[in-house]
Amino acid sequence: MIRPILFLSDFGLEDEYVGLCHAVMARVTPDARVIDVHHGIPPQDIATGALTLVQAVTYGPGDAVVLAVVDPGVGTGRRGVAVEAGPAILVGPDNGVLMLAAEALGGIRRAVSLEPGRVVSWPVSNTFHGRDVFAPAAARLAGGADLADVGGEIGVETLTELLFGEPLVERERLATTVIGVDRFGNVRLGARPADLEAAGLAGGDLVLLREDTQIPVRRVATFGALGREEVGLVVDSAGWLAVVRNGSRAADALSLRRGDAVELHSRVG
Amino acid sequence: MIRPILFLSDFGLEDEYVGLCHAVMARVTPDARVIDVHHGIPPQDIATGALTLVQAVTYGPGDAVVLAVVDPGVGTGRRGVAVEAGPAILVGPDNGVLMLAAEALGGIRRAVSLEPGRVVSWPVSNTFHGRDVFAPAAARLAGGADLADVGGEIGVETLTELLFGEPLVERERLATTVIGVDRFGNVRLGARPADLEAAGLAGGDLVLLREDTQIPVRRVATFGALGREEVGLVVDSAGWLAVVRNGSRAADALSLRRGDAVELHSRVG
Amino acid sequence: MIRPILFLSDFGLEDEYVGLCHAVMARVTPDARVIDVHHGIPPQDIATGALTLVQAVTYGPGDAVVLAVVDPGVGTGRRGVAVEAGPAILVGPDNGVLMLAAEALGGIRRAVSLEPGRVVSWPVSNTFHGRDVFAPAAARLAGGADLADVGGEIGVETLTELLFGEPLVERERLATTVIGVDRFGNVRLGARPADLEAAGLAGGDLVLLREDTQIPVRRVATFGALGREEVGLVVDSAGWLAVVRNGSRAADALSLRRGDAVELHSRVG
Repeated sequence: MIRPILFLSDFGLEDEYVGLCHAVMARVTPDARVIDVHHGIPPQDIATGALTLVQAVTYGPGDAVVLAVVDPGVGTGRRGVAVEAGPAILVGPDNGVLMLAAEALGGIRRAVSLEPGRVVSWPVSNTFHGRDVFAPAAARLAGGADLADVGGEIGVETLTELLFGEPLVERERLATTVIGVDRFGNVRLGARPADLEAAGLAGGDLVLLREDTQIPVRRVATFGALGREEVGLVVDSAGWLAVVRNGSRAADALSLRRGDAVELHSRVG
Repeated sequence: MIRPILFLSDFGLEDEYVGLCHAVMARVTPDARVIDVHHGIPPQDIATGALTLVQAVTYGPGDAVVLAVVDPGVGTGRRGVAVEAGPAILVGPDNGVLMLAAEALGGIRRAVSLEPGRVVSWPVSNTFHGRDVFAPAAARLAGGADLADVGGEIGVETLTELLFGEPLVERERLATTVIGVDRFGNVRLGARPADLEAAGLAGGDLVLLREDTQIPVRRVATFGALGREEVGLVVDSAGWLAVVRNGSRAADALSLRRGDAVELHSRVG
Repeated sequence: MIRPILFLSDFGLEDEYVGLCHAVMARVTPDARVIDVHHGIPPQDIATGALTLVQAVTYGPGDAVVLAVVDPGVGTGRRGVAVEAGPAILVGPDNGVLMLAAEALGGIRRAVSLEPGRVVSWPVSNTFHGRDVFAPAAARLAGGADLADVGGEIGVETLTELLFGEPLVERERLATTVIGVDRFGNVRLGARPADLEAAGLAGGDLVLLREDTQIPVRRVATFGALGREEVGLVVDSAGWLAVVRNGSRAADALSLRRGDAVELHSRVG
């Protein structure tokens, strides 16, 4: 059996990096099917990469090799790893990017630290481990290699955890950050409907507070329920709370960017 | 037999939407080959999507499943449909985006209204029917499912037609609109060489009229026949009339954008 | 045996050109695997296309069909060609774009001039030979066709060479140009470590000279060895010398763009 490969990176498509990783994989395992999940992860943004991988393993093939190259530590001593989690294998730098997906798959059973000498026959560059370590390791694992063929066993407890801010839930107050803005200007918050409920804000209309600006927002099921230029709070397709605006880009209209701190309160009189 | 899937959308590549649809298809039908036709259709631009699909079915594999997600009505009551036309199957929202390609394939024989409950086992979001309805339905049909496996039969005559302005052809006058600008700044008009002939404008030099500006244009077979900075009218690779300029972007030089009304006249004295 | 296809172009992803070439290849040879190497080659930049192809054949499958469409001469009399080099076949316009990769593969043994009438059954456009000539020829060759099936034999010595400036190497002076800027703002120079050695500049610190600006640069193995905002000279993943900056984009900070002439000197007192 050849496993499909789910490939995510922060390489973008302006350069040839993604294509060269594909070329390497086709060389190592000619029949492997490679699915591009996303290559537009903001450069070195481990958290966004980790969140996107969760969606990929939720909706994609269960027996995949997940290849994630978001790697601010390339060229330093950070390890490359391959891990087994549920029916899948995950490959990438040991910086936390794989950890949410591994948890969603049922947790990590086994891990190895990649040894480039076992993976490729060419010299390994200092700057492009996607091509020289991660992609060829993923392709070998997709072709049926065992973890022990690409690295040496390490303790699961030694893997780097992902640091990720939880929303602050208080009575009638939910404090979080903007974790993403999509192509349509919709603003994804780092909180879920359950957090809103926990804060006692699930019913009724709300106010979004950013610095000293207050924006009335209405909790709605779909865009269609909003009036023209009205601001709403929906659950987006990945299950996060998102601020949207009917007829224009919420992010632009409200000057919200990734990383901004925001709060949701109940709307008063 | 597994059918190839021709996939077109307005998702762009800035987000993970296209990749997640690919992941779903690989899960539903692991051996299906998915060909990305284009994901840069301007958001919600049904007409451009429909025109691009015609090219895909003209030049692509005849027995494909055509998957088109350009869907301004997502979250409202609009139906999702799958239709049989010629040797192909087409899947998408019932908003006209499939209709030109279906016509090019020989017309629609049979249609169903997609029923998400028949297609996927997970809850269907309000905002991402590409992932939750259209992509999995396309993958199931590619894997050999019958239309009846993904939806309920509907009358072909109930499908939404595409509204698309025909050029106005008069004696020595052809009025149309700019229907697209490509990467090189070439300006595609919503008219074909036959329209030019019908207007009696096939021979001789022309004037392009936009509001009160007159631009001399020369009918040529290729770019190479134009002088430096000269404006020409060619037949582009999809068979449309296109305004081009040798050495610079016609769209910028002439301030032409999609949707602009233009006229072609014969050049006088 | 079906060969994989390594596909490179300057089409970009803003339009449907790449997707239509894929559609044609899926029609001609349904089981061919097509690997997108890169479609963001700057428009008509034959040299960058040729350099990127070298990397693709170095790291990709050896028995590939290499399809390269960077074609400023489309619509003029320039020939389309297919050539055999090492275990691979290369297809593209006869303008030099294939020549570096062919050389890296061991040199060209045999060449044909493509005859569109042998390749496709539809009329060939003047502007889109990617769709009408090169992609279908590549797909037929991937499916097992012989060169003689797609064109007529021509002398290898009649193929157009790639003109490409060599760096100027003198004692303690290396003059070259910026041949590329990547997504991270790293500045690739048209010279390699061997050129630096030949100039006697391999040890010690250097100065980068651009017009009358002098920038101190330090030769380092990795980014990590640089201080904050320090400028370094590294060997990039393709083996070129590259100017990098720790913590910001070197290209922006130093106002360097593709085509700029630069010199490296030894740093004096």
